[in-house]
Amino acid sequence: MRRYGVYTKSDGFSFFCQNVSMFDMKLSQRIKNTPESPIRKLEPAARSAKARGIKIYHLNIGQPDIKTPNQMVSWLKKTNIHHLAYTESQGNRQLIKSIVKYYHQLGAKDITEDNVIITAGGSEAIQWCFFSICEIGDEVMVFEPFYTNVEGYARMADVKLVPVTCKIENGFHLPSNQVIKSKITKKTKAVYLSNPNNPTGTYYSPSEVKRLYQLCLKNNLYLIVDEVYRDFIYQKVKLSTALNFEKKSQKGRMIIVDSFSKRYSLCGIRVGFMVSRNKELIQNVLKFGQARLAVGDLDQQIAGRMDQVPPDYLKKVKKEYQERREVIYQGLKKIPGAVFTKPEGAFYYVTKLPVGDADKFCEWLLTSFHHNQETVMLAPANGFYLSKGKGKEEVRIAYVIKKSGLRKAMVMLKLAVEKWNRE
Amino acid sequence: MRRYGVYTKSDGFSFFCQNVSMFDMKLSQRIKNTPESPIRKLEPAARSAKARGIKIYHLNIGQPDIKTPNQMVSWLKKTNIHHLAYTESQGNRQLIKSIVKYYHQLGAKDITEDNVIITAGGSEAIQWCFFSICEIGDEVMVFEPFYTNVEGYARMADVKLVPVTCKIENGFHLPSNQVIKSKITKKTKAVYLSNPNNPTGTYYSPSEVKRLYQLCLKNNLYLIVDEVYRDFIYQKVKLSTALNFEKKSQKGRMIIVDSFSKRYSLCGIRVGFMVSRNKELIQNVLKFGQARLAVGDLDQQIAGRMDQVPPDYLKKVKKEYQERREVIYQGLKKIPGAVFTKPEGAFYYVTKLPVGDADKFCEWLLTSFHHNQETVMLAPANGFYLSKGKGKEEVRIAYVIKKSGLRKAMVMLKLAVEKWNRE
Repeated sequence: MRRYGVYTKSDGFSFFCQNVSMFDMKLSQRIKNTPESPIRKLEPAARSAKARGIKIYHLNIGQPDIKTPNQMVSWLKKTNIHHLAYTESQGNRQLIKSIVKYYHQLGAKDITEDNVIITAGGSEAIQWCFFSICEIGDEVMVFEPFYTNVEGYARMADVKLVPVTCKIENGFHLPSNQVIKSKITKKTKAVYLSNPNNPTGTYYSPSEVKRLYQLCLKNNLYLIVDEVYRDFIYQKVKLSTALNFEKKSQKGRMIIVDSFSKRYSLCGIRVGFMVSRNKELIQNVLKFGQARLAVGDLDQQIAGRMDQVPPDYLKKVKKEYQERREVIYQGLKKIPGAVFTKPEGAFYYVTKLPVGDADKFCEWLLTSFHHNQETVMLAPANGFYLSKGKGKEEVRIAYVIKKSGLRKAMVMLKLAVEKWNRE
Repeated sequence: MRRYGVYTKSDGFSFFCQNVSMFDMKLSQRIKNTPESPIRKLEPAARSAKARGIKIYHLNIGQPDIKTPNQMVSWLKKTNIHHLAYTESQGNRQLIKSIVKYYHQLGAKDITEDNVIITAGGSEAIQWCFFSICEIGDEVMVFEPFYTNVEGYARMADVKLVPVTCKIENGFHLPSNQVIKSKITKKTKAVYLSNPNNPTGTYYSPSEVKRLYQLCLKNNLYLIVDEVYRDFIYQKVKLSTALNFEKKSQKGRMIIVDSFSKRYSLCGIRVGFMVSRNKELIQNVLKFGQARLAVGDLDQQIAGRMDQVPPDYLKKVKKEYQERREVIYQGLKKIPGAVFTKPEGAFYYVTKLPVGDADKFCEWLLTSFHHNQETVMLAPANGFYLSKGKGKEEVRIAYVIKKSGLRKAMVMLKLAVEKWNRE
């Protein structure tokens, strides 16, 4: 242990302070290893562009502009708040009951309140998955490009993420069993799948998910399925959950991560949940829940109005996203050299652009490019890969603004790619 | 890796599922080692008492019944919500500015926005402290009885909590430097102090905190000071923060954990914050902040109205608590054999009751005792100790209900102790 300065009683407190101005306050290796969010790292450049009077079309972040259902928020106008109290650590009881009912509608009719715990966003559910099933040094498989915020939690939990690379050419669908199996080691504890996928928009079909689940069964792995984009699939499929592929006798290999953020345009309430047939898991994560006491009361009350939202709401939202997806598609078709497929779900594209280094290109869009005082903000996709060098030419495009704005943004992007390649 | 059942393609998915009903889905050692909240573990017994028609006076949990300032919540009636969006990961900018201003008022005039990060309750700030400054196996010193939710995060972070025992006879004040120093090892990274203290109500004087800070300086340790009960000190002292004991040249040994939950009776909003002169620390924990995206928008907007609350509000609240403290004091004086001092702060007493086993006594209060269909719920204090066998006869009493209720509860407690000792 290093000591700076020698303290004797006669020195006095203030003398001591003056003489110990150098010290060695190290931060932990795990926080140093935690990456910055690839989605948010360009924020300083964006702020400075705005300061220069540039208007930015934000296609970089999964923050939709869709209206929240009135049914969920209008009650706030009528409420008289005396004080706001902790809720149960497991979550607001009414909300849990509504979630159980919802999962019954999805087909998982055996789900009860004991299978559900409310979390501070889907993020907390992901965090708890790692801490509850992995020892230090254990491995979790992800399909890259993957939802990178998972990495922050993996670093916290000292869990190693093992990437299986998916390919842009086949719309980032799952590779063969052989490829997946080759990445399973004795340390592998779980597979994480986001379906529909953030960042790629890929919707993995029931047969793909079943195939993966079988692999998990055979190799004694948990399957974590993040279904926060469940409602946004642009083909004719029945609304469902991966839980329907798990037999009731298989008590607990599957863990569903879910959230209200995207479904009801409620990113600003931090309410997600974990659903699993593994009641022992839910009981145990409740201890983490007790440590953080509770999730926000008002936020849970907002989410708890899910029953009151007419089914029409999500139909309209889905139609809107579907049209936006088409706008991006038409825009990308006009950029020579762009590589992409039309994603089946969520509200993202991962696209290869002929720009050499997408990281630099995305920064340049903010620092050096504008068209009539406007520019586009994208997320460079290399941050969604763990394998070094992968995704270097790719970007994630989020279609979270109105079609008119998307159209302008796509024209601008085409101009920008041309200018970038000229310069 | 164990495998259950052998899958061949011809078996089919459903056959396979039926034949793999036994498997080995282990949970991690760290979640198994995480304790249940000692404050919440009697909840099932309480629920069942209520089901039998028993009215319970809840003195077990730090959930005040005080009215939230109107200024913080009345605006909700006027707001038109289009959608609720993610805020900045560091927190709502207006709220951060208000906190900076507040810390200037507390005396720490050099604090800037870069020294602050908003967290999901004080709890998240504690969690981030462990993950950002400790490696696996490092040690953090706590003064027992201590705020046990800290242990949940220590287990998560694989950090060992090392207890220094404080004594009921001297109001749980800090022991001598010699005692404290004897617990410092090469693995010690930080000292955690809650001031005023939960669960004991002890207010550590400036000279006590300075003494501890000097020890931290000499031993190159972080000092984490949890000041969420800062406003509730029942002696004439100027509102202050431990940050005032840190010279500006000492950039970053001290980390303040703070929260709105107790100050404004806002436990149900999950908004706390971390303040430190160590900007590198704040910059780095922001990466954890990005992983969980943001804190609730509405909750931060509520907290952000702190500027509008008249200073009178906290004066009145403090007076109310002070009177409640007196009710408990008078009640305890009437219980022969009870050991206690009048705590200087927060809204708790830790008291030794002549009941042999306080754990069993507290359970019995809910399962087998009632007086005119009413009973009292207390938190057994052994859960606030790490040292085995300590605090066996102690309970935590939270004075978070009205004086009339407290008076009844204290009469009931006296009767209960008598009955318990007769039976």
